[in-house]
Amino acid sequence: MIVDVHGHVSAPERLYAYKANVLAHRGAHGRGGVSVTDDELRSAVVDEVGASFGMSHMAHLDAAGIDLQIISPRPYQMMHSEQPAKIVQWFTEETNNMIHRCCQMFPERFAGMAGLPQTPWTEPTDWIPEMRRTVEELGFVGVLLNPDPMEGQGPPPPPLGDRHWYPIYEALCELDVPALVHSAGCKPPARENYSLHFIIEETIAVTSLLASDVRRDFPELKLIVSHAGGAVPYQVGRFMANSARDPSGETYIDKMRTLWFDTCLYTRDAIELLFKTVGIDRCLFGSEKPGTGSVRNPENGRWFDDVRLLIEDIDWLNDEDRKAIFEENAKSVFRLPAPES
Amino acid sequence: MIVDVHGHVSAPERLYAYKANVLAHRGAHGRGGVSVTDDELRSAVVDEVGASFGMSHMAHLDAAGIDLQIISPRPYQMMHSEQPAKIVQWFTEETNNMIHRCCQMFPERFAGMAGLPQTPWTEPTDWIPEMRRTVEELGFVGVLLNPDPMEGQGPPPPPLGDRHWYPIYEALCELDVPALVHSAGCKPPARENYSLHFIIEETIAVTSLLASDVRRDFPELKLIVSHAGGAVPYQVGRFMANSARDPSGETYIDKMRTLWFDTCLYTRDAIELLFKTVGIDRCLFGSEKPGTGSVRNPENGRWFDDVRLLIEDIDWLNDEDRKAIFEENAKSVFRLPAPES
Amino acid sequence: MIVDVHGHVSAPERLYAYKANVLAHRGAHGRGGVSVTDDELRSAVVDEVGASFGMSHMAHLDAAGIDLQIISPRPYQMMHSEQPAKIVQWFTEETNNMIHRCCQMFPERFAGMAGLPQTPWTEPTDWIPEMRRTVEELGFVGVLLNPDPMEGQGPPPPPLGDRHWYPIYEALCELDVPALVHSAGCKPPARENYSLHFIIEETIAVTSLLASDVRRDFPELKLIVSHAGGAVPYQVGRFMANSARDPSGETYIDKMRTLWFDTCLYTRDAIELLFKTVGIDRCLFGSEKPGTGSVRNPENGRWFDDVRLLIEDIDWLNDEDRKAIFEENAKSVFRLPAPES
Amino acid sequence: MIVDVHGHVSAPERLYAYKANVLAHRGAHGRGGVSVTDDELRSAVVDEVGASFGMSHMAHLDAAGIDLQIISPRPYQMMHSEQPAKIVQWFTEETNNMIHRCCQMFPERFAGMAGLPQTPWTEPTDWIPEMRRTVEELGFVGVLLNPDPMEGQGPPPPPLGDRHWYPIYEALCELDVPALVHSAGCKPPARENYSLHFIIEETIAVTSLLASDVRRDFPELKLIVSHAGGAVPYQVGRFMANSARDPSGETYIDKMRTLWFDTCLYTRDAIELLFKTVGIDRCLFGSEKPGTGSVRNPENGRWFDDVRLLIEDIDWLNDEDRKAIFEENAKSVFRLPAPES
Amino acid sequence: MIVDVHGHVSAPERLYAYKANVLAHRGAHGRGGVSVTDDELRSAVVDEVGASFGMSHMAHLDAAGIDLQIISPRPYQMMHSEQPAKIVQWFTEETNNMIHRCCQMFPERFAGMAGLPQTPWTEPTDWIPEMRRTVEELGFVGVLLNPDPMEGQGPPPPPLGDRHWYPIYEALCELDVPALVHSAGCKPPARENYSLHFIIEETIAVTSLLASDVRRDFPELKLIVSHAGGAVPYQVGRFMANSARDPSGETYIDKMRTLWFDTCLYTRDAIELLFKTVGIDRCLFGSEKPGTGSVRNPENGRWFDDVRLLIEDIDWLNDEDRKAIFEENAKSVFRLPAPES
Amino acid sequence: MIVDVHGHVSAPERLYAYKANVLAHRGAHGRGGVSVTDDELRSAVVDEVGASFGMSHMAHLDAAGIDLQIISPRPYQMMHSEQPAKIVQWFTEETNNMIHRCCQMFPERFAGMAGLPQTPWTEPTDWIPEMRRTVEELGFVGVLLNPDPMEGQGPPPPPLGDRHWYPIYEALCELDVPALVHSAGCKPPARENYSLHFIIEETIAVTSLLASDVRRDFPELKLIVSHAGGAVPYQVGRFMANSARDPSGETYIDKMRTLWFDTCLYTRDAIELLFKTVGIDRCLFGSEKPGTGSVRNPENGRWFDDVRLLIEDIDWLNDEDRKAIFEENAKSVFRLPAPES
Repeated sequence: MIVDVHGHVSAPERLYAYKANVLAHRGAHGRGGVSVTDDELRSAVVDEVGASFGMSHMAHLDAAGIDLQIISPRPYQMMHSEQPAKIVQWFTEETNNMIHRCCQMFPERFAGMAGLPQTPWTEPTDWIPEMRRTVEELGFVGVLLNPDPMEGQGPPPPPLGDRHWYPIYEALCELDVPALVHSAGCKPPARENYSLHFIIEETIAVTSLLASDVRRDFPELKLIVSHAGGAVPYQVGRFMANSARDPSGETYIDKMRTLWFDTCLYTRDAIELLFKTVGIDRCLFGSEKPGTGSVRNPENGRWFDDVRLLIEDIDWLNDEDRKAIFEENAKSVFRLPAPES
Repeated sequence: MIVDVHGHVSAPERLYAYKANVLAHRGAHGRGGVSVTDDELRSAVVDEVGASFGMSHMAHLDAAGIDLQIISPRPYQMMHSEQPAKIVQWFTEETNNMIHRCCQMFPERFAGMAGLPQTPWTEPTDWIPEMRRTVEELGFVGVLLNPDPMEGQGPPPPPLGDRHWYPIYEALCELDVPALVHSAGCKPPARENYSLHFIIEETIAVTSLLASDVRRDFPELKLIVSHAGGAVPYQVGRFMANSARDPSGETYIDKMRTLWFDTCLYTRDAIELLFKTVGIDRCLFGSEKPGTGSVRNPENGRWFDDVRLLIEDIDWLNDEDRKAIFEENAKSVFRLPAPES
Repeated sequence: MIVDVHGHVSAPERLYAYKANVLAHRGAHGRGGVSVTDDELRSAVVDEVGASFGMSHMAHLDAAGIDLQIISPRPYQMMHSEQPAKIVQWFTEETNNMIHRCCQMFPERFAGMAGLPQTPWTEPTDWIPEMRRTVEELGFVGVLLNPDPMEGQGPPPPPLGDRHWYPIYEALCELDVPALVHSAGCKPPARENYSLHFIIEETIAVTSLLASDVRRDFPELKLIVSHAGGAVPYQVGRFMANSARDPSGETYIDKMRTLWFDTCLYTRDAIELLFKTVGIDRCLFGSEKPGTGSVRNPENGRWFDDVRLLIEDIDWLNDEDRKAIFEENAKSVFRLPAPES
Repeated sequence: MIVDVHGHVSAPERLYAYKANVLAHRGAHGRGGVSVTDDELRSAVVDEVGASFGMSHMAHLDAAGIDLQIISPRPYQMMHSEQPAKIVQWFTEETNNMIHRCCQMFPERFAGMAGLPQTPWTEPTDWIPEMRRTVEELGFVGVLLNPDPMEGQGPPPPPLGDRHWYPIYEALCELDVPALVHSAGCKPPARENYSLHFIIEETIAVTSLLASDVRRDFPELKLIVSHAGGAVPYQVGRFMANSARDPSGETYIDKMRTLWFDTCLYTRDAIELLFKTVGIDRCLFGSEKPGTGSVRNPENGRWFDDVRLLIEDIDWLNDEDRKAIFEENAKSVFRLPAPES
Repeated sequence: MIVDVHGHVSAPERLYAYKANVLAHRGAHGRGGVSVTDDELRSAVVDEVGASFGMSHMAHLDAAGIDLQIISPRPYQMMHSEQPAKIVQWFTEETNNMIHRCCQMFPERFAGMAGLPQTPWTEPTDWIPEMRRTVEELGFVGVLLNPDPMEGQGPPPPPLGDRHWYPIYEALCELDVPALVHSAGCKPPARENYSLHFIIEETIAVTSLLASDVRRDFPELKLIVSHAGGAVPYQVGRFMANSARDPSGETYIDKMRTLWFDTCLYTRDAIELLFKTVGIDRCLFGSEKPGTGSVRNPENGRWFDDVRLLIEDIDWLNDEDRKAIFEENAKSVFRLPAPES
Repeated sequence: MIVDVHGHVSAPERLYAYKANVLAHRGAHGRGGVSVTDDELRSAVVDEVGASFGMSHMAHLDAAGIDLQIISPRPYQMMHSEQPAKIVQWFTEETNNMIHRCCQMFPERFAGMAGLPQTPWTEPTDWIPEMRRTVEELGFVGVLLNPDPMEGQGPPPPPLGDRHWYPIYEALCELDVPALVHSAGCKPPARENYSLHFIIEETIAVTSLLASDVRRDFPELKLIVSHAGGAVPYQVGRFMANSARDPSGETYIDKMRTLWFDTCLYTRDAIELLFKTVGIDRCLFGSEKPGTGSVRNPENGRWFDDVRLLIEDIDWLNDEDRKAIFEENAKSVFRLPAPES
C-alpha cells in the first residue's frame, strides 16, 4: 500500500468562484456557500476533459500507484492575510467541506487534512474550533499549519518556535493529529513567489523549531515539514557545526529527527540526500501530486512528480525501507482510516 | 594547488572597535581610521593565542592544504543598513584596506575580494568607485555582492534580476571581475539570524536571476553563488518541472549553469548533490574557513569546514575533476595573481 | 425601444475562478486565460438553473422590457487595489473579452462598456491602451471610471476634479465615448461595504467635478454618474446655497446639468426627485439589472430593480419625456450600434 | 409653536480666538478661559453689524418664525482630532458654557445641546462627565454625537453600530436625552470638505446603526440623524432590496423608523421625499439656521434655509402633520423647558 | 534711541478668530479676510482694558524706554504644519498685513518683520513671493525664519546648514534684509512646549549653520539668532574644544561671530555671558516685549522682560557699548526707516 | 581632595570589538564575553602610547589634580536603541564589569557608576536588576539615566516627569544612590549629533522634571544633571517669568535647587553663571575628563576640560566654596568609598 501524505484537493471551479466572490463583497453578501453537485465534484477528480495537470487527479494517483492520498486545501489559494477575518473563515470551511465530500466519495483513496482559518487579525485560539470540527466531526487525520499568515507581507509573524503558537500545539496533542508545516500565499512586496515562499518558510520553520523549547515542551507533538525541509538537509553542515559548539551534546541530526519530512522533491539525488540526512524512519512519502511537478520530464517522459519512481530507483534501499517510506511511517504518524473489509 | 574562493579576512580587533566607534558617533568625530601595526595584523592571521576559531587562520589554511585563499570582509560585520551612509563607506574602505595589507603581507596565500559600500540610502552607481579602487588600485580579484542591504528589515530591495542592479553588472563586466553573491547582516524583525539569511538570500538570488534577462543582457557577467546556491540544488526538481512548461526548451539546469557555485557545504552528501546537479565545471572550491564551520566534528575529529577532505572522499571524482574544482575553475573565473617565480 | 445604460455582465463562474487563481499565484503561473465555451457563456446569460438573481439575466431583461443593455464588468469584482498591477490588467482584459463575446452572441441585446485596468500602482496613461482596444477593436461604447482604485483603503486618491485624471478625460474625448463613474470594490478598514461605497464615491465625484475646471477644460467630455448621483440631488439645497455665494451667477443646477445621471434608484419618489432636480434631458435609463435590486418587493411582487415600471408610474411624465429617458438621451450620449435591418 | 432642533450657537469671536490660542500653545499656557461680557454675547446674537449670515441670528429666527431653537456648538469648529486631548476638552467646555449663557440670556428662544469632548486619543467613557455636567447642571436637552473624531484622517473609527460606542448609548439612556448625529471637522487627506463630510458620515451612520444590534440593545435610545439622513432616503431602494433578502421580515423602512431625522434640506422636493420615506412621525423640524443655507435664493428672494416655508409649501400636509413636524415630535423626543407662564 | 529687534505684533482677537475659522473650514469657505477697524487695531496696541500682559503693548514700550520695535507675527500662532498649505498662506498674509497696518499707524514706534508661509508641504521657493511682497511693497525690514515647519512632529526637516534652505538665503541676500531665526509652534508628540522648542531649535540652528558652508557660500547673509542663541553661548566650551581639533585654525568664537544674537534673556548674568562670549558688536537689543517675560519679578517689582534695565545694570559696559547694543548694531543690520524730520 | 563626579571609563578596544560583534550577530553567537587581561586593562588607563586624548586617562587625572573620579560607561557607545534587547543587556553588563575591574585595580582613584540596560523594547522594571547588581554586588555609587533610549529616533519617549519612570525613581531611593541624567547615542534622522543631543536632552529633562510631581513624590530622590543643566541656567529668566505666574509662590530657582548640576562646562564665564544661578551647594565638580574637552586651548595651552583651573580662577569663591564644589557636595550626594587608612 502506498500512502501519499502530501496531496491537495482538486475542487470544482465553483469553490474558487466562491472565493473570488467573498473577496469582492468582503462579507457584505453574507456567508453564502458553494453549491456543487456530486457530479461536478466527481468530475473535478476524475474527468480528463479540462484537467489542469495533463490528466485527472485520479489518473495521476493511479499512474503513480498511490493507494491513499491525504488531501488538504491548495495552499496558494488560502488567502490567510485577507480582511475581514470572517471571509477567511468561510472560505476555509468551504474548502474543508469540499475535502470532506471528496473523502466520502472516494473513501479508499482520500483522507482529509484540514486548512485552518489562520489570519494575522485573529489569535491561534480562534483557529482551533475549525481544527476540532474537521478532526472530530469530519474525521480528518491532520491539519496544515502555515507559519506565515502575513503571506510574505511584513512584518513577519512570530516564528514557529515562539510561544505564540503553543495553543495550536496543545490542540494538536490533545486531538492526537499531526500538522503539515506548509505556507500558503505570498504577496508583494515579497520578492519570491508563493512556491519559493514555501521553501523559505520551511527553512525558517525547521531552524526556529529546533532552536526552541517546543520539542521539550511538547514531546508528543508531530510536525511534518513539507518539501523535505526546505534548505535544511542540504545546508545541514552549517547547523551541525554550530550545534557542535553546544555543550548539551545533542547533535543537530538528533534535533532534526524530532520532526518528520515528506519526500516531496523531484530529483532522485535530492531524495537520497534527505534519506541519508534524517534517516528513513523520519520520512513520509509525499508527492504533492497533481501540482507544480505535474509535467512530463522531456528527458525521460516521466512525470516530474512521480516521486514513487524516484524512490524505486534508489538501489540502496531495501524492501523494508521502501515499505516504511511508502506506508508504515505514515501509519505511525497518522491515525489512518481502516480500509473497509 | 588549492584555491579557496570563499574566505573572510581575520582582522585585528581594532578594526571592529573602529566600527563600534563610528556607529556610536555616527560621523560626528569625522572619518578617522584604523591604526594597526604590521605585527598586530600578522598576529591576527597567525597567532594561536586568542584565535577565535580554535587555531589561527593560517594554521587552518595549512591544515586544510589551502594554498591560496580569496578573502573578503566578514559579511556579518558589514552593517549595510546603518545611517548615515558615510559610516558604511568608511568602514567598508577600512576593511578593504585591511584585506589589502593582508594580501601584501602574505602575497602567496591571499588575494583580495572587496566589500562594496552598499546601503539602502545610496544608489548602485555610488558603490562603483570603491569597486574600481579596490580592483584597479589594490589589485583585488572580485567583489562581494549583497542582495539585501536592508539587512532583513523590510520592505525588501529589488531582487537581483531587476534592472536596479544593472550598473553593478556593467561595472563588473567592464572590470572583468566576478562577484560572490553573499548577503551580510540581518536584523530584527527578521525571524532568521544572519547565517540563515545567507541561505535565504542566495535562494532568492538564484531564482530571481534565472527568471530574468540578466544572463542575456550580460553574457560576460560572472556571478558566483555562495554556500552552493542556498536551497536551489536540493529543491531543483520544482524549478525543473516549472521550466519544462516554458516553450523555449531551455532547461533549468541550463540556466543554473550560467552561474557558478562554491562548495561551501559541510557534508559530503550535500557536496555530491551539488556536483551532480550543476556539473563540476560550474563549481569552485570554497570553505569559508575559518568561520562558522571551524569546529571539530566529534564523530571523526575533522573540522567541519575541512571541505577539501569531503571532496577527497567522493570516490567517483577523478583527478581531473578535483583539479578543476580545486584550481582550474577558479583560475578561469578569477584573474589570479601569478605566483612569484 | 428601451436602452438600459447600466448593466453588468453575467459571466460564467470560470471567469471568477480565474480571478481567484491569479490572486493566489500573483502572476507566478503566467497570464493564462479563461476557457469558456459558447454554451457556458450562453448558459450564464439565459439559463434559469442556478441563476443568481431569481431568474436569468435575459429573463430579467425580457420581463422588464429592456431591448438593449450596455453591460460592463461587475464592479465589486474588479480588484483594482491588488498587486502586482499585471494581475489587475489580466483580469480586466479577460472580463472585457467576456463582455465582448456576450455582445457578439446577443448583438441586439447587449453593447459593451469596458472596465479599465486602474490601479494605485499605475498611472492613468497606463490604462488608456485597454480603453483604446475595447473601443476601437471591440466596438465598446463606453468605459467605467472608478474614482477610487484604492478600494476604500487610505490614503484617498486625487478626486476626479484633479488634473491627475486629465489623461483619461483627453482619451475619452478623443475616442468620443462616455464614462460611467462607478466605484468598484471596498476593503477594510473602510466602514462601508462596496455598495455604500458606490454612493459615497459618486457623491464625492459630483462635488469634486463641479468644484473644478473639468467642465471648462473638457467641454466635450461626457460623464454619467451612477446611481443617480449618490447623495447630491437629495442634498442639493446645501450646494445651491453655497453656489449662490459665487459671483459667477452659475447655479449649482447649471453645473449639475453638465453631467448625466442614470435612473438607478429603486423607489419612485427618489426617481421623481432626480428628474425634478437635474431635468429629464440629463437622465438616462439605468437599472443595474440583474443585481442588488433583483429581489421581489413583498408588498407588490415587483422586482425592486424594475425601474421601468417605476418610471411608467410617474404620471406627470408624458410620452416624449419617457422616450427621452428610455432611448433618446442614451442615443445622444452613446454611439450605439445600429440595429441590423 | 415652532421648535428648530438643529441650530448652532452664534458666539463672540473671542471664543474662536481662545480656540486659536489653545491650538497655538497646546496647553502650555494652562486652561485659561474666555472672557465675554453679556453685551458681547448679546451682540453676537442680535447685532446686525458684522453679522456673518446677512442678518443677525435672532433676526433669522424671527423672520423664519422659529420660536425655540436648540443650539449646539458649530460642528466645523470642534477640532476633535487635535492633541493633546485636554485642549479639546477645554474648548468644548468653553463652547458649552457659551451656549448655556445664551440660553440663560434668551430662555424662551434657546435650549442647549452639548458638544462632547470626543477625541481619538480618549475613550467614550471619558466624554461622559461633560455630557452629565451639561445635562444635569446646565439643563441641556441633548448632545451632538460625532461619528468621526478622526476628522476624515484615516484610519476610520469604529462605526456607530460597533460596541465601542455603547458607553455613550448607555449614558444617553440613563440621562434620557437624545443625540444628534453630526460629524464635525474634516481635514486633508480627505477629499471632501467638512460640509460634505457631514453627509457621508450620516450615510455611514444610518447604515451602520441599522445593520447592528443597537436598536435591540438600546430600545430607549433616541438618535436623530442630521441633514435628513445623508443619502439614505434617496438611495433607500438599494437598502430595501437588500433587506428583503433578510428572513426576519423586518423591512428597511421599519428599521429606519427606529431613528429620527431632521428636515435640514433646502429644497422642497427633497423634504417631501424625506416625509414620504420615513414618515412624518419620525421627522423633526431643523434648519441649521443661520448657517450654510443662509443666503438668499436669487430666484425667489427666500433664504435657502427658510425650511419652514418649504414645509408650508407642501400642499399634501395637513395642520396636524405640520404641528407634529414643527412641535409635537420635538416635544416627544426632547424634554423641553416649560415656557414661563 | 533704543531699537528692539525682537517684538511680536499685538493684534486684535479677530485675527485669531480668523485663524480658528480657516483651520475649521480648511479652505472650504474661501480665503475671506480679517475685518478690523483702525479703532480695534489701535485698541489692541494701546488699550489697558483687557491687555494680555498686565498693561498695553505701547505702555510696555514706553515703560521700557523702547523707541522703535521691530514686530513680527506671534510665532506660536503661526501653524506652519497645517494642511492644506493655502490656509497657512492666507493666515500668514493676514498677519503680515496686520503688522503693516500697525506700522503705518505708529510709524515711529514700529517697523515690520514678516512671517513666511513656510510649510512642510511646500518648497522654500514657494515662500519667497511673500518675502518679496512684504519687503518690497510693505517696507518690512526683515523676516522670521522657522527652522522647523514640522512644529516638532517628526521626521525633522533638513537643518539650516543644508542646501535645502539656499533659495531663502539667496532671496535674503538679494533683498538685503536679515532673518530672525525663530521657531514657531510645537505639537505632540514632542515632549517640549513651543517655548522650549524655541531654545532647542536655536541651538540646533547655530550648530548646524556653523558646521556648514553657509557662511562661506553667503558671506553677505545676515542671520540673527533669537533668545541669545539657545544653549550655545553657555555650552560654548564643548564646541570650542571640538573646533580646536580642526586644522583650519578658525575658532568656534570666530564662527559664532558670523551670526548675530539678540539679548532676549531675562537675567543679567546670562546677558553678561552672551556679551562676553560673542562680543558686543554681534548683539542686538531684543526683549520680545510684551510676551513670555511680561510678568513682574516679585523680588524687585521689575518686569522680567525689561531687558534694558538688565543691560543698564551691567557696570562694565560703557556708553559706547550700550549705544552699540541699543541702536547702532541694529542700524547696521537692518535698513531702518529714517525718522520723520 | 578633589572628586570628579562625571568621568567615563577608558576601556580596552576589545570591549568595543565585542560590541561590534554582538551588533553583527544580533545574539546568534550567544552572549560570549570580553576577555581582557589586567595588563590590557591597566594599559587602557595609564599607557601613553595610543592614548586617545593626548595623554593617558591617569595622566589627565594627575595633571588636573583629580583624586577620585566616578566613572560610568562612555555614553555615546551605549546603543540603547538596538535590537534585540538582549544585546544591549549583554554589552551594558560587560561595560559595567569593566568599570568594576578598573575600580578594583585603582580603588583610590575610581568609583563606579553603572550604565543601565535601557531600551525602547523593555520596561523600566527590566532595568532594575542590573542597577541592583552593580550597586549591591559591585559597590557602584550611582547610575546613568538616559532620558532617550530611542537615541533621537522618533517618536520621543515619555519625558522624565512622566510616571513611566517611577519604577526607576523608586529603586534609586531604595538603594540610596543618585542618578546622573545623561543621554547616550543619537542616530539619524535626528539633526543633532550625540554631543548636542546631550544638551537638548538635559534641557528637556530639567524642564520636564520641574513641571512634574516628581520632586514631591520622591523627596529623597537625587538626580544630577550633566553638563550643568543643558540650556536651563542660561535661559532661566524665561522659566522664572513663567513660574512667577504660578500662585504657589515657589520660584523656578527653588525648583531647580531640588536637582544637582555638575560643572561640566569648559568656559569660566559659563561656570560662574551656573554657580550664581543654582547656588554653590547644588553643584558638583565634574569634568568628563578625558573626553570631548581633552584638547589644548591654543590661546593658553590649558586643556579645555581642566575644569578645576577654571574654578580656581573664579576669584569671588572662597575656600569653603571650593571645598564644597570639589568634595563636600559630592560626599553628601554619593556614599563614596572610605579611603584606605
